[in-house]
Amino acid sequence: MRQAPLDRFYSVIPAGGVGSRLWPLSRADAPKFLHDLTGSGQTLLRDTWERLAPLSGEQRIMVVTGRAHRAAVEAQLPELADRNIVLESEPRDSSAAIGLAAAILERREPGVIIGSFAADHVISGSSLFRDAVRTAVSAADAGYITTIGITPTEPAVGFGYIECGDELDVEGAEHVSAVSSFVEKPDLGTAREYLAGGRHLWNAGMFIARADRLLEELALTKPDLHAGLVELAEAWDDPQRRGPAVDRIWPRLEKIAIDYSVAEPAAERGRLAVVRGHFQWDDVGDFASLAKLNTAGRSGELAILGEHARVLADAASGIVVSRADRVISLIGVKDIVVVDTPDALLVTTSEHAQRVKSVVDALRLGGSSDVL
Amino acid sequence: MRQAPLDRFYSVIPAGGVGSRLWPLSRADAPKFLHDLTGSGQTLLRDTWERLAPLSGEQRIMVVTGRAHRAAVEAQLPELADRNIVLESEPRDSSAAIGLAAAILERREPGVIIGSFAADHVISGSSLFRDAVRTAVSAADAGYITTIGITPTEPAVGFGYIECGDELDVEGAEHVSAVSSFVEKPDLGTAREYLAGGRHLWNAGMFIARADRLLEELALTKPDLHAGLVELAEAWDDPQRRGPAVDRIWPRLEKIAIDYSVAEPAAERGRLAVVRGHFQWDDVGDFASLAKLNTAGRSGELAILGEHARVLADAASGIVVSRADRVISLIGVKDIVVVDTPDALLVTTSEHAQRVKSVVDALRLGGSSDVL
Repeated sequence: MRQAPLDRFYSVIPAGGVGSRLWPLSRADAPKFLHDLTGSGQTLLRDTWERLAPLSGEQRIMVVTGRAHRAAVEAQLPELADRNIVLESEPRDSSAAIGLAAAILERREPGVIIGSFAADHVISGSSLFRDAVRTAVSAADAGYITTIGITPTEPAVGFGYIECGDELDVEGAEHVSAVSSFVEKPDLGTAREYLAGGRHLWNAGMFIARADRLLEELALTKPDLHAGLVELAEAWDDPQRRGPAVDRIWPRLEKIAIDYSVAEPAAERGRLAVVRGHFQWDDVGDFASLAKLNTAGRSGELAILGEHARVLADAASGIVVSRADRVISLIGVKDIVVVDTPDALLVTTSEHAQRVKSVVDALRLGGSSDVL
Repeated sequence: MRQAPLDRFYSVIPAGGVGSRLWPLSRADAPKFLHDLTGSGQTLLRDTWERLAPLSGEQRIMVVTGRAHRAAVEAQLPELADRNIVLESEPRDSSAAIGLAAAILERREPGVIIGSFAADHVISGSSLFRDAVRTAVSAADAGYITTIGITPTEPAVGFGYIECGDELDVEGAEHVSAVSSFVEKPDLGTAREYLAGGRHLWNAGMFIARADRLLEELALTKPDLHAGLVELAEAWDDPQRRGPAVDRIWPRLEKIAIDYSVAEPAAERGRLAVVRGHFQWDDVGDFASLAKLNTAGRSGELAILGEHARVLADAASGIVVSRADRVISLIGVKDIVVVDTPDALLVTTSEHAQRVKSVVDALRLGGSSDVL
């Protein structure tokens, strides 16, 4: 008898991006996924692991990360199997990262269904999350590249949207729709229309698919990339062959987000399905969203992140992130963002939070890479 | 032949107040006078010394400071004669500090004229300053308690004012006036009237007087305080007697500013003279004035204090004081005040700079005296 779809499910966690807009909290040697951004007491990576383990089992979670983060990732995830940590010699974007995981896993276990979930997003409502993944796994088993879209709760302008098309008939899964289109971050008016219309979901970058189907889509749009990944996967589980293959192939792989190599082309051909997620989700893209996340519903308040924070605030609102052992005093500053680390300090406002990335670029150009 | 007045002149520098409104830059163990607030490369105390030395000579400058600051003061002023450092066992306000200096110096050198100048004010235009002091010394020699009032250059609301009365006939000195009254910090409308009227000067807390005359005034208004100071001065230059006298007398002296014990009463009896100072002066009472001082005439700019400051600013104005070896990044913050020290960080705005003192009080009450 064929295994139930969920028994063939494998979680993949790409743990890549630094999160430049969260500098100086996030940085090259301490990327966003290695931080506790919610005050939960553990890192976003660990949160992600614990969310996925009940679905796929701890032995069936693969992490794709940079070589520099190996020790930190293993410290966070002591249960992670040795063969399930895939180390990138350099970042090659999400098509390469997820595609390599798909190719390795398909080779090990033909028919595997993979689900890829970012290591640095914040989700609450784990059982609703698992409901959505189970539905998505059924749709993936039916051959669809499947994504989970988040039901909007406000007219957000910081996220991309997925427009739902007709409902699809998928065995064992209800309320699965085709995807009509992907939409980049809209303006506020458009976001309000989306919220009112009910057909648009937030794009959370979650992809669930049979590994062979995902590779098939990639072969159609990016044949060279696909060929490189398959060749790499063939050598992967042979300790003698892996190193040379990585050195030869990895640096030449095209850098492209999986949204463009797989998801959007699949949507155009009617091969992309979307499942509605009713859980709370945030990609915590900048300090404005971090502030909002930590003062949910409490406007005008000051969010304080940092286990040993010593903050004295007088008529202050916004967010303070305390990562240095210092007294922080705020007086009469509204919607402020203060991020205090041992070697770098950021002071800005929620309104300007998106511009942090440009400061990081300026620091890099200005020879201050020591604090990046 | 009687000595010329300036030959009998002695400078007194009370180096007392912490400068709480400049926390966390100023603090108990690093009071305001031990900082370089102008980027001159030396402390305000040293600036004060160098301003006075050409007037009285280095051997004729007395510093009254707290015991805790002895080493720091001596490091700043290696020329300071041993017998000219007067150490307070605890702060007893300016009447005690200046009165003790007057009593000691009058005993050593009857007929001495003393001039008391705060250790932590900023003055530019040293030759204009010296002109004013010379005039004031002549008025003091004629028996007046004399102050130097600063000609206002704007309708400042952060200073007290001195209202000039009739011109006085003083030998060897022109443009010396009686003082009609002292005025506390006015509102903006009143300050504008003062500026337009030309009869009001800023009260810079400078007092020049014959020591015997100053003690005489004090004897009239505060006989107990006067008696205590005279008794203390009698014992001062005897190493055997000084300690016990300090222990017995000093803690019981009334704490009162010399403005109230001497200057205002003398003004009421027509015994206070004022000399117009045309130099630039600021008491640098808070970070708003510090910002203004360091961006003089350059509105919308960011003042940066700190020899090794690494500041990256994007659309930011106000002031950054960098006393910790860190990169400081400011994005889109206007009139901001950021003071970065190894153990404490302050973020506020010019508008709220006056409230820093209340934060210091709150920290003290909250058990964070380690950073005060």
